[in-house]
Amino acid sequence: MTETSWHGGAAAVATLTFDVDAESPILAHGRGYAGHLSTMSHQAYGPKVGVPRILDLLGELAVPATFFVPGWVAEQRPGLAASIVERGHEVAHHSYSHRPPTTMTAAGQRADFERGMEVFARQGIEISGHRAAGWESTWDTPALVAEHGLSYDSSLMADDRPYLIETGAGRIAELPVHWSLDDWEQYAFLPSPQIGSVITSPVRVLEMWRAELDAMRRYRCLFNLCLHPFLSGRPGRLEAVRALIEFGLGLGDVRFARCRDVAAAALADPALPAEPLRRLEIDPAVYPD
Amino acid sequence: MTETSWHGGAAAVATLTFDVDAESPILAHGRGYAGHLSTMSHQAYGPKVGVPRILDLLGELAVPATFFVPGWVAEQRPGLAASIVERGHEVAHHSYSHRPPTTMTAAGQRADFERGMEVFARQGIEISGHRAAGWESTWDTPALVAEHGLSYDSSLMADDRPYLIETGAGRIAELPVHWSLDDWEQYAFLPSPQIGSVITSPVRVLEMWRAELDAMRRYRCLFNLCLHPFLSGRPGRLEAVRALIEFGLGLGDVRFARCRDVAAAALADPALPAEPLRRLEIDPAVYPD
Amino acid sequence: MTETSWHGGAAAVATLTFDVDAESPILAHGRGYAGHLSTMSHQAYGPKVGVPRILDLLGELAVPATFFVPGWVAEQRPGLAASIVERGHEVAHHSYSHRPPTTMTAAGQRADFERGMEVFARQGIEISGHRAAGWESTWDTPALVAEHGLSYDSSLMADDRPYLIETGAGRIAELPVHWSLDDWEQYAFLPSPQIGSVITSPVRVLEMWRAELDAMRRYRCLFNLCLHPFLSGRPGRLEAVRALIEFGLGLGDVRFARCRDVAAAALADPALPAEPLRRLEIDPAVYPD
Amino acid sequence: MTETSWHGGAAAVATLTFDVDAESPILAHGRGYAGHLSTMSHQAYGPKVGVPRILDLLGELAVPATFFVPGWVAEQRPGLAASIVERGHEVAHHSYSHRPPTTMTAAGQRADFERGMEVFARQGIEISGHRAAGWESTWDTPALVAEHGLSYDSSLMADDRPYLIETGAGRIAELPVHWSLDDWEQYAFLPSPQIGSVITSPVRVLEMWRAELDAMRRYRCLFNLCLHPFLSGRPGRLEAVRALIEFGLGLGDVRFARCRDVAAAALADPALPAEPLRRLEIDPAVYPD
Repeated sequence: MTETSWHGGAAAVATLTFDVDAESPILAHGRGYAGHLSTMSHQAYGPKVGVPRILDLLGELAVPATFFVPGWVAEQRPGLAASIVERGHEVAHHSYSHRPPTTMTAAGQRADFERGMEVFARQGIEISGHRAAGWESTWDTPALVAEHGLSYDSSLMADDRPYLIETGAGRIAELPVHWSLDDWEQYAFLPSPQIGSVITSPVRVLEMWRAELDAMRRYRCLFNLCLHPFLSGRPGRLEAVRALIEFGLGLGDVRFARCRDVAAAALADPALPAEPLRRLEIDPAVYPD
Repeated sequence: MTETSWHGGAAAVATLTFDVDAESPILAHGRGYAGHLSTMSHQAYGPKVGVPRILDLLGELAVPATFFVPGWVAEQRPGLAASIVERGHEVAHHSYSHRPPTTMTAAGQRADFERGMEVFARQGIEISGHRAAGWESTWDTPALVAEHGLSYDSSLMADDRPYLIETGAGRIAELPVHWSLDDWEQYAFLPSPQIGSVITSPVRVLEMWRAELDAMRRYRCLFNLCLHPFLSGRPGRLEAVRALIEFGLGLGDVRFARCRDVAAAALADPALPAEPLRRLEIDPAVYPD
Repeated sequence: MTETSWHGGAAAVATLTFDVDAESPILAHGRGYAGHLSTMSHQAYGPKVGVPRILDLLGELAVPATFFVPGWVAEQRPGLAASIVERGHEVAHHSYSHRPPTTMTAAGQRADFERGMEVFARQGIEISGHRAAGWESTWDTPALVAEHGLSYDSSLMADDRPYLIETGAGRIAELPVHWSLDDWEQYAFLPSPQIGSVITSPVRVLEMWRAELDAMRRYRCLFNLCLHPFLSGRPGRLEAVRALIEFGLGLGDVRFARCRDVAAAALADPALPAEPLRRLEIDPAVYPD
Repeated sequence: MTETSWHGGAAAVATLTFDVDAESPILAHGRGYAGHLSTMSHQAYGPKVGVPRILDLLGELAVPATFFVPGWVAEQRPGLAASIVERGHEVAHHSYSHRPPTTMTAAGQRADFERGMEVFARQGIEISGHRAAGWESTWDTPALVAEHGLSYDSSLMADDRPYLIETGAGRIAELPVHWSLDDWEQYAFLPSPQIGSVITSPVRVLEMWRAELDAMRRYRCLFNLCLHPFLSGRPGRLEAVRALIEFGLGLGDVRFARCRDVAAAALADPALPAEPLRRLEIDPAVYPD
């Protein structure tokens, strides 16, 4: 078996990703939440306060990152995506409306996907990759990504290393995510809509993520961290992000990279198998609706 | 850009706030809970045991605080608000009934707001600020606050530093709150109504709040802590509050202040921008009900 | 003001209480759960494995305790209550069926209460006190307790020190409980019925309870700990109970007592005020159903 | 009383068990989830990435384990069960479809059970024991296990040591499980279907499990740990499993064994009482539906 090369010799590769969701995941629960001023302000904190602080931190530590932005959010705040690109980071596609694909028809998903692409085209933002809203891809999602010329998706979880998918509309890299490397499960709290119910100390979250990054070096994994500016942009949590990055840099064998660069390396890696997705055949007598 | 001055040179400003809710948030779930004696006694602990202990602690450590009291609670316990003011602390408006504004009509919200104001007027308590029940302001709330001559609101979350709002009925300061600086998410537990489901160790809560206060010094923030006497009045939790205050005092560059004093400083700060709230325009085709 | 004497000079008094619920709280969710063998076995662990281990631990450390037993449980396992009394501990009344009083009519509550009393009378177990199922007393509960000649209740939460209630049917002592001194919130987990969803490490629980016991010495409180044999009878958790008791004994100024002895001291304490319960008058226009 | 011998002189016996559920518990919530690609990929990680890593870890540390596999999963991945047996571990029966028996008729449970047995028979996998899906046995389950010639079940919780059941269809050993020795409660998270809502740091989980294993030595218990490859197969969590096993090995008096070997020792232990299950008689007037 050929050795893989996507990691460039690093023991683990870290992609710091920020999902700049702003109000979109709340509005996806129902338009009426637009009238809840406190909740809207809670979400607005992300692009307003969180993103600039995150950009400063990344600049200070000189590590690259990837920002997944819903098209609706980029449209609402015209300078936002450009301000990220200017600092040398990648902006990627995170749907238009942040409604989960699993709640839409195939046509609805396509329309939402393409509307997002159009926003970035109008803003002159080059897009290489996609992440499904709520990490809720359907079997149609990977082909949509390939068909529109993107090189990677980052919404699936069948591995903790990049893998390649033959979508039928072209080959893409999958940069897998995981709930345990997401700040939402640790920090998100809102009573209405109920998006989470427990707020964990960043001290404990840092402990968990350090342990994961460290352990991933044993298996040469992709440490694909997903942070939300409205959550991790807060001071105590951002200190935990800072400490995590410093820990990773201190290890000496962890490479920090943008998603598009990891995807390119994965697509160029002859040792990574590329396979079509195998759709499960389910007997309705075994699993009813 | 002019330097801001609202902080008076401190690295961070801490406002210790206590929401003296007593039975009101439970009754807001339904009048029938008044018949649940154990639950009513659980809430009564706040004004009966928690508030006197908190007042003693604040006196001992010589730090000022702000108590947000629903009008209904002040009415039920006639000497309560006065006992707080006598110790040099501020009493502020926390609605009449503790029903969230997002669950009321605009007229209902106004009536509830004004009924609360009347209670404090009758009791001779001077009111400078307001906090919405459940941190559930509507777009009407800030103007209500300004119209009644108050100088600040403390229910929004678009920043972690004070900001100014042109409400249309006058300019007010917003002293933003956040779920992670609230003891409810850490301690509140009741099976019926289900107001919370996890009870965290105060040792961990102290760890989180110390980390946040410390980190806020990097960004010159407002550490606007929200505590509930029926929760944080319990012995082990009050020790955590004591340790937190002592930690803040020991830092040497954190200023403890009442909300009204922070609001006055913010309103007098020429470097703080004052803007009208920008209401989101939502396309019903993108976000259905 | 006279000094209170109920504590006998101790800085804090600890009542170790064990609610021997067995299957009863599960069956109160619906009789159908009797068919769920795994769940029934989960509950049976309490009297079968937990209680004997707890009795051995208490004997080894020579501390007295109080066991609250539903009448139905005592009836199902005829020797259970006697085996507890034989070891010098108190058995107290914990309803007949463990259905919460707030879900029953006044007549239903009375019938359930009296059926429980009859079980203990038939078994020759002397009963001095009562704890409402689910800590869900109604305003009728204290008078029921007094009317049947008991000296105390342990279901309310308006203080963390004993207090006296003039019930109309006689004076009783209230030994208040609290959710934070209950192992259910920390350990209970069942998917169906969903009785809890998080399992905390006993190391953290011990940390929290030690902090509470320590802090209670500042305010001369009653550390009224509520444990369930089906939960805290498990090895790692019982080690935490052992460590907690050893911590309390080591403090030197904490007294361990049975509930009935604390109640007797409270009732004999001339400095404890005895008051009727003040039922809240609720305006239906303020708090609808 | 004769001393028991099932433990072979060890202070505690540890059975490391892995429930290789893959997609089955999700599909049991509804066939429609098969269309949720992200969720399906989340579950596929178990057999694809988790199982090989776990096998390597067990080999490296030279400890035996037991893998409970739903028949449907073994059928979908024909080489899976054999790859486990080849490494010297045991494969056991974990239903066909992973639908909980408590949600099926008696006939439905039997059909599901037998279909699972047939899969393993066709694959030449020798089966000695069974674990009910979701740990949701009915009173019919133990007899089904005995009737099909298996020697043990591992789904009940009435003790933390093995016990023997006279099922009417033969005697079996019960190797009890418990929610606190399951990684699901600590790590499982999915928003839809909502299979869990909190993700705990493996550092804390290790702390809890070490404490339990250590404490079990006082009572000569069975440390019957249940792990899921899609959960504990992730790097940071697998490090916690590694550390736990190393801790157990280091204690010197803990024996690691396959379930079938513990069951055989229990069935051969003359000091273990064998009793029929006592079905509870429930008065419908006490516990309504």
